[in-house]
Amino acid sequence: MHLIDVQSGLLANNDAVAAENRSMLAKRGIYAVNVMSAPGAGKTSLLERLLPLLAQRWRVAVIEGDIVGSADAERLAKLDLPVEQINTGGACHLDAKMVHHAVHEVAHGPADVLVFENVGNLVCPAEFDLGEDDALMLLSVTEGHDKPKKYPVMFRRAGLLVVNKMDLLPMCDFDVDAAVAAARDINPGVTVLRTSCRTGEGIAEVAAWVEHRIAAKRGAPPAKG
Amino acid sequence: MHLIDVQSGLLANNDAVAAENRSMLAKRGIYAVNVMSAPGAGKTSLLERLLPLLAQRWRVAVIEGDIVGSADAERLAKLDLPVEQINTGGACHLDAKMVHHAVHEVAHGPADVLVFENVGNLVCPAEFDLGEDDALMLLSVTEGHDKPKKYPVMFRRAGLLVVNKMDLLPMCDFDVDAAVAAARDINPGVTVLRTSCRTGEGIAEVAAWVEHRIAAKRGAPPAKG
Repeated sequence: MHLIDVQSGLLANNDAVAAENRSMLAKRGIYAVNVMSAPGAGKTSLLERLLPLLAQRWRVAVIEGDIVGSADAERLAKLDLPVEQINTGGACHLDAKMVHHAVHEVAHGPADVLVFENVGNLVCPAEFDLGEDDALMLLSVTEGHDKPKKYPVMFRRAGLLVVNKMDLLPMCDFDVDAAVAAARDINPGVTVLRTSCRTGEGIAEVAAWVEHRIAAKRGAPPAKG
Repeated sequence: MHLIDVQSGLLANNDAVAAENRSMLAKRGIYAVNVMSAPGAGKTSLLERLLPLLAQRWRVAVIEGDIVGSADAERLAKLDLPVEQINTGGACHLDAKMVHHAVHEVAHGPADVLVFENVGNLVCPAEFDLGEDDALMLLSVTEGHDKPKKYPVMFRRAGLLVVNKMDLLPMCDFDVDAAVAAARDINPGVTVLRTSCRTGEGIAEVAAWVEHRIAAKRGAPPAKG
């Protein structure tokens, strides 16, 4: 009971800071997406493919969450985009307060799109709103189609479910239809796209989904300066 | 600071209960291993292969941790072993208190070996001692060889690192030597074995490692009743 009270208090506090983050971004018309998955599902590999497509039309900034180190931030910095590394210092997720300062910097710099790359974890990141517009989650076909039933909170929150590593599907006992059906049992409105970051399959469709969501938030793209 | 104090208090409380669990098991000469990995790395698949080998000589019991549901427990129950399901109800890891009652049951039933299958998560399970003798972690080759540097706590704690899904290695950009070197930077004494739960590669070696650890704890096997 004590633990639950502590947790409720943490989440209520988080939601208040997330609302501030969301308000800062909204004032500048910045669209934000929170990218989440298990470790090794391909978040950084997806972003390496996706962000250059988005950067053709939009000014993209990244806030990168890791427990320690900056390996992923270094990979994404090669795309010549601003990347801010947050080290959670042991915490298994980003929270709204951890990213607050970096969101402030993005909101006051030149940016149209903000991408949070969360800590690799199918559980707690889903419980902590950062102030994003959309949650994008990856499930790789090597992880098994039983995952929606086992980790329902993240599947419930996802606006887009990316089924990744499709190039490995022939070698895996993964039933895509079963995974999608299980995800839709939990979240009937979720969009599902199939990708391979190795072959490039489906990446353009993910970019189109993000473009559609940006358009829904802010209308036509500005002239890029 | 508040958060850190809460966390320290939780861990201190956990360690006290873990010590009780360990003491209960030690009195009965029961060896316990805590199996941890990211979601979908193959914990249940490994146990489906491993436990029948161990059960030839030992009475094996399983405590299964999941956020919700009992899918993995149902898979392992088919092995005709006693399996106790713990639902963490949102918590991203097992802790010593959650398993305390089930450990008590195992300690007072007929058992030689207790296997905890933890929640799929590379972060928090590593911080919560359950009272086990050894930590066994899986890293699948589809997850990437950068994981030891990004999730050091679990790699530091592992007595055995199982590099799983070796059948997929030819299709993955995974450098086994780099992964092992990174793990040994953090944990020089870690034993590393390579497995495929699909082909059966390496499973006998994992069983031999567990046998060796049981022998170190309790000597020669008893006549099985």
